[in-house]
Amino acid sequence: MKFDATDNLCVNTLRTLSIDMVGQADSGHPGLPLGASPMAYAVWAGHLKFVPSDPEWFDRDRFVLSAGHGSAMLYSMLHLYGYGLTMEDLKKFRQLDSLTPGHPEHGHTKGVETTTGPLGQGFANAVGMALAEQLLAKKLNTPDFSLVDHFTYVLCGDGDLMEGVSYEAASLAGHLKLGKLICLFDSNNITIEGSTGLAFNEDMKKRFQSQDWQVLEVEDGNNLDEINAAIRKAKRETEQPSMIIVKTHIGFASPKQDSSCVHGEPLKPAEILATKKALNWPSEEPFFVPEAARARFAEQAAYGEKDRKRWLKLWKKYAEAMPEKAELAKAMLGREIPEQLFDPPTTFFDKPVATREASGKVINLIADALPGFTGGSADLGPSNKTDFLKEPERTLHFGIREHGMASIVNGLALHGGLIPFGATFLIFSDYMRPAIRLAALMRTPSIFVFTHDSIGLGEDGPTHQPVEQLMSLRLIPGLLVLRPADAWETLYAWEAAVRLKRPVCLAFTRQKLPLMTQYREKIAAGLKRGAYLLRGPSTVPSIELIASGSEVSTLFEAAALLEKDGIAARIISVPSFELFREQDKAYKESLFLPNLPKLAVEAGRSIGWTDLVGAEVEVLGVETFGKSAPTAKVYEAMGITAEAIAAKAKKIVR
Amino acid sequence: MKFDATDNLCVNTLRTLSIDMVGQADSGHPGLPLGASPMAYAVWAGHLKFVPSDPEWFDRDRFVLSAGHGSAMLYSMLHLYGYGLTMEDLKKFRQLDSLTPGHPEHGHTKGVETTTGPLGQGFANAVGMALAEQLLAKKLNTPDFSLVDHFTYVLCGDGDLMEGVSYEAASLAGHLKLGKLICLFDSNNITIEGSTGLAFNEDMKKRFQSQDWQVLEVEDGNNLDEINAAIRKAKRETEQPSMIIVKTHIGFASPKQDSSCVHGEPLKPAEILATKKALNWPSEEPFFVPEAARARFAEQAAYGEKDRKRWLKLWKKYAEAMPEKAELAKAMLGREIPEQLFDPPTTFFDKPVATREASGKVINLIADALPGFTGGSADLGPSNKTDFLKEPERTLHFGIREHGMASIVNGLALHGGLIPFGATFLIFSDYMRPAIRLAALMRTPSIFVFTHDSIGLGEDGPTHQPVEQLMSLRLIPGLLVLRPADAWETLYAWEAAVRLKRPVCLAFTRQKLPLMTQYREKIAAGLKRGAYLLRGPSTVPSIELIASGSEVSTLFEAAALLEKDGIAARIISVPSFELFREQDKAYKESLFLPNLPKLAVEAGRSIGWTDLVGAEVEVLGVETFGKSAPTAKVYEAMGITAEAIAAKAKKIVR
Repeated sequence: MKFDATDNLCVNTLRTLSIDMVGQADSGHPGLPLGASPMAYAVWAGHLKFVPSDPEWFDRDRFVLSAGHGSAMLYSMLHLYGYGLTMEDLKKFRQLDSLTPGHPEHGHTKGVETTTGPLGQGFANAVGMALAEQLLAKKLNTPDFSLVDHFTYVLCGDGDLMEGVSYEAASLAGHLKLGKLICLFDSNNITIEGSTGLAFNEDMKKRFQSQDWQVLEVEDGNNLDEINAAIRKAKRETEQPSMIIVKTHIGFASPKQDSSCVHGEPLKPAEILATKKALNWPSEEPFFVPEAARARFAEQAAYGEKDRKRWLKLWKKYAEAMPEKAELAKAMLGREIPEQLFDPPTTFFDKPVATREASGKVINLIADALPGFTGGSADLGPSNKTDFLKEPERTLHFGIREHGMASIVNGLALHGGLIPFGATFLIFSDYMRPAIRLAALMRTPSIFVFTHDSIGLGEDGPTHQPVEQLMSLRLIPGLLVLRPADAWETLYAWEAAVRLKRPVCLAFTRQKLPLMTQYREKIAAGLKRGAYLLRGPSTVPSIELIASGSEVSTLFEAAALLEKDGIAARIISVPSFELFREQDKAYKESLFLPNLPKLAVEAGRSIGWTDLVGAEVEVLGVETFGKSAPTAKVYEAMGITAEAIAAKAKKIVR
Repeated sequence: MKFDATDNLCVNTLRTLSIDMVGQADSGHPGLPLGASPMAYAVWAGHLKFVPSDPEWFDRDRFVLSAGHGSAMLYSMLHLYGYGLTMEDLKKFRQLDSLTPGHPEHGHTKGVETTTGPLGQGFANAVGMALAEQLLAKKLNTPDFSLVDHFTYVLCGDGDLMEGVSYEAASLAGHLKLGKLICLFDSNNITIEGSTGLAFNEDMKKRFQSQDWQVLEVEDGNNLDEINAAIRKAKRETEQPSMIIVKTHIGFASPKQDSSCVHGEPLKPAEILATKKALNWPSEEPFFVPEAARARFAEQAAYGEKDRKRWLKLWKKYAEAMPEKAELAKAMLGREIPEQLFDPPTTFFDKPVATREASGKVINLIADALPGFTGGSADLGPSNKTDFLKEPERTLHFGIREHGMASIVNGLALHGGLIPFGATFLIFSDYMRPAIRLAALMRTPSIFVFTHDSIGLGEDGPTHQPVEQLMSLRLIPGLLVLRPADAWETLYAWEAAVRLKRPVCLAFTRQKLPLMTQYREKIAAGLKRGAYLLRGPSTVPSIELIASGSEVSTLFEAAALLEKDGIAARIISVPSFELFREQDKAYKESLFLPNLPKLAVEAGRSIGWTDLVGAEVEVLGVETFGKSAPTAKVYEAMGITAEAIAAKAKKIVR
C-alpha cells in the first residue's frame, strides 16, 4: 500500500477528533493520540483484517490498545470505520453511561477487543490472543485450509513495557514462537513524571532480543511508509513475535509536544487551535471530519467484507472436505457442552481425595468431551493437578509467571474457541489480582484454579498459607469464587465454571477430604445455589453449622461431638457466596432458619460471613497469619478443629 | 582467599544438614541446598561482612536468600556461624513455633534479613537494601569516611527471575547504578514442571545487559575458586550491579540429581545415605558435623568482629571530626522523631484541599525534620503529590513498576536508616499485594501512599476506580490502613504512619474536601483511636452516621438535611479499622451507642462494616464496579450522596 495526502488527512482526523473529545470532556489524555495516530492508522488502513458490521467475526485480526488512556484515538477510529459509534457518542466522551468511557471497555463498546488502562494488561492479553490463534490453528488448520489465520496487533507505550506483567508475557510469547503477534511500541521517551530517563534506561532492542523477539525500528513515527514497511517485515517473520519500536513525539504538533503534561492534561481551547494550525487542519470547528477522510475510512472499512466472504467460502469447503474436523471446529467455536458431561458414575470418586486431586480427575473428564478446554499452571502442575493426561500437548506451561498467566488466560478467553484456565497456589492469586479484576470487569469466562487453599497446606508456612485471599477474591464484583467441600462439590463446581461462562476462581485443598457420596444428589442441586442444607439432623436442631470447603468435613466431626451432648446440628455448605446471593429471595430466606443459633467456620479471615448469613451468626475464622507445621498442628494452633467448633457451638447454644 | 579440603567439607556440611532437616521433617526442599551450597558458602566464607553476635550491626553486608524454599541451607549456615540456632532447632525444621519454619521469616529467626518464599520478592528486597546503602552513603559518607559501605548479596533461582517483579527491580537497579548489589543466580535449568525449557528460553546474559548489569558466568557451580573469582570481579565493578550466573545441578550428588522432583520432595532415607556416600561423607549419622568443618565455620564467624570494631572506631573519629554530620547520622539511624513535628499552626491548612494535596504538604513538613524520610511514586508523582519540594533529589522515581516499588520499599525499610514510602493510585495496590502482604508479615515500617482512593476520581472510570481495594487491604493481618477524612486527619494519619513504625497504607482522595479545622483537637485525639465521635448533636440523637475518608464530609451534608426534618445525628469518623480494633474494651464499647440506629457509608464494598460496628448497622456501599463520568455524576449514579444518605437514614430511623 502506498499512502497519500488523504491518508495524512485521515491521521490528522484521528488526532483532531481525539483532542476535541478530550477538550470537550475537559478530561482525558491528548498526548498519545497526537503521537501514535500514524502507527494506529498504518495498521488499520494497511493491514488489519476487520469487519465493522461483524465485529465478532472469528478470523478477524485483533487490535489491542494496551495504552488504554489513548481511548479517544480508538473511539475515533471506531467511529470513522463504522463500528456504530456516532459523533454524538464521541462528544459524550467520559460522560455517564456513554459508549465512550475514560478507558476502553470490552463488552461495552463494539470493536474494543479488551478492557485496558491498568498498564501491561493489554499487552499480555494480546499474547493470549496470539496464543489462542496458534493453538486453534494447530488443531484446526490443514495444509490446504488455513481456517484460523490472523494476526494480533498491540499498541503499547513505555508504561506498558515497564510493568512486570509485560516482561512475563513477552518472555512466554518469545518462547512459544508467537510469530503472528506484532507489537507497535509508541516510544516517546516521556512518562508522567518527565523523561523516561528519570527511571528507565533499558536497551529495548536487546531486551526483546533476549526474549527471542524480532525487533524492528522506525525512526520517524510520523512516516506512514516507514511504519508500513516495518509491519510488512513483522508479518513475514513467522516464528518470532515482532516488536516495532516506533519513535514518536507525545502531544505531536501541540504547543506541549514532548512534555509530560500533555500525557494526561486536556489541551486548552487555544492550544487545540494552535495544534490544528500546526497540522494545517482545514477547519477550526470542533469535531470536524473532512469529506475526503471520511470517504477514505469508509473505503478501507469495506475491505474486510471481502476477507470475511472468502473465509465463509473457505469454511464451506472445509466442512465439505472434512466433516469431522468441521464438527470439531464447531464444537470449539460454539463452546458446546454435552448434557451428561458432569454425570459420571458414583464410582468416579471412590476414596477420600484432596479436592485438587478430584479437580485433576474432572479436568481430564472435561478434556475428553471439550476439545477447546485447555490450560495449565504457573509451574505448579504436579501440585495443582492440572495436567492433561491423554493429550499432554494440551497442558500449557506458563512458567513461574502468575500475573502473566492470568492476563494471558484473559486473552485466550477473549479470543474465543477455547475454554482456558490458569492454575497456581491460592496465595499467589495476589500476584494475579489486576488481571483477575479485569476478567471480572469484562465478564470474560476466564477460569482460575487455586490449590493449597488454606492453612491446611501445612509446613510451607505463613508465606504460603492464604488467610485473606478467599474473602479478598469474593470482594471483586462479578467474580465467582467456588470453594468445594469434597470431590463431588468439586465436580459440580467445575460444571458451574464451564457452563456459566463467567470469570471463576476455584479453590481446592492440598489435603485429603472425606467423600460425601451419600449426599451426591443434594450436592448436585445445592452447588448451583451457592449455599445449601447438606445435612438436616433427625431431631430438632439446636444450631446451624455453616462452612465452605474443607471446613465442611470438620463440621461433620464437630456435629458428631455435639450429638454426644444431645445437641443436634444442621450442616450448611457454602461453596459460593456469589451464587447464593444470586438466588431468589424465597430461597435465601428459607435456607438459614430464624431464631436458631448459628456458627460459621472458615479457615480464613472471618469478615464477610456476617454479611452473608445475617447479624446473628458467630464466626470462627483465622485472623492472623498462619504457621509452619504439619497440617493437623496448624489447625490446632489456629483453633480450627472439630473440638474447637463443638466447644464454641456449645457456648452459643447455652 | 584460597579454598581447601576443609572448605569442601564445610560445603558438604551445609548439604547434609539440609537434607537431614528435610528428611526429618519429611517436608521441604532438598534440591537447592545440594546445588547451591557452594555459592552460598563462597559468599559467606570469603566475602560477607557479618557479626553473628550482633546480627543487626548496621554496616554488615546483607545476604538475601530469595529462593526461600532453600531455607534449610540458610538455617544450617546460621547454626554453624553461631547466630543462636541450635542443633535442636535444626531438628525442629518446619515444626510448630520452631525457629526454623518452612520459609525464612525475618523477625522470627536471627540473621534472616527478609522473609522469602513468594518468588521474586527477595530479589527486589535486595535491590531496596542496596538502594538504601547508596542513599545513606551519599548522605553520610565523606571522602575520608566511608561510614556506610557494604554489599548486598542475593541468591536466587530461575523462579525468582521469571517473576515480573524481578525484571522491574532489576531494571531500576541497573538504572540507579547499584554497583554494590551482587546477585548469584543458581542456574540449574530445572523448575517444578521439569526443564526450564518447557516455558523459558531467555538469553539471561543479554537480558541483564539490556538492563545495564554486569553479567558474569561461572561454568562449574561446585568450583569454589571459580565462584570466588566472579564475586571478586563483581565487587570491583562499582557502577553496574552484577549478575553472576552460576551453573549448578539441582539435588547435586543425590540419586535424583538434575530432576525436577528433587526440588520439593524430601529424599528418602536410602536416598539420603546414597547422597552422603556420593559426597564421600564421613558418617551415616544424621545431623553429623565434622569437627574440622565446625572449627572452620567458627573461624570465619570471628572475622566480622574485626570489621565491626574497625567500624566503631571509624564512627568515633567521624563523630569527632564532624559532630553535625554525626548528629544527622544518629537521627537517621535512630529514627528520632521530634515531639512537635505534627503540631503546625492552624493556618497550615487554610482552604478545602484534596487529602492527597494535604498529604503532599505533610510529606514536606516531615521531610524538613526527618532526614531519613524519603520516597516517591511509580510515575504518578504529580498526581500522588509525593514530591520533595526543597530537596528534589530526595524524591525517588520508581518508574511504572508498582510491584517492584513495593518490594523495594520493603527492602529500604528492612535496611534501616530511612523512613521510606512508595506511592501510586489505590487501584494499583492490586499490583503490589504480594509485597504489601510481606511487609505486614514482617511488620516492617513500609509506608504505602495511595491516592485517587474511590469512585470519586471520576472520569478515568471503572478500570481506575477502587471499589474492593480498601476492604481487601484491611483483610491483610497486621496491616494498618488509614483513610483520613480531611487535611487534619491526613496530618495525624501521617503522624501515625511515621511514629508507629508499622506497615501502613494511606488512602487519599483526588477530589477536594472541606476542612474540619473546628474539630482539630478531637481529630488529633481521635485518629489514634481509629474511630471516634467527630460531632455529637446538641439535641438527643436519633441516629449514628459512620464513615471513613471523603464520605465523612458527605455525612455532614446529610446530617444538615436530616436536621431540617428534626433528626439529629451523631457523626463518627473511622479513619482506621485496625487502630479501633486495638483499643481497649471500654473505649470500643463506649463509642457506638447501643439501641441507636446506625448507618455506615463508604464508597467501596460494604462487607466488613458489620463486623466492625456491630450487627445492627446498615451500610451504604458500592457493590459493583464504578463508572466513567465527572465525580458528582459518579457519586449520584452509585448512590453515595448526602440526599441518598439522608433518605436511607430516615428509613432506618422510622
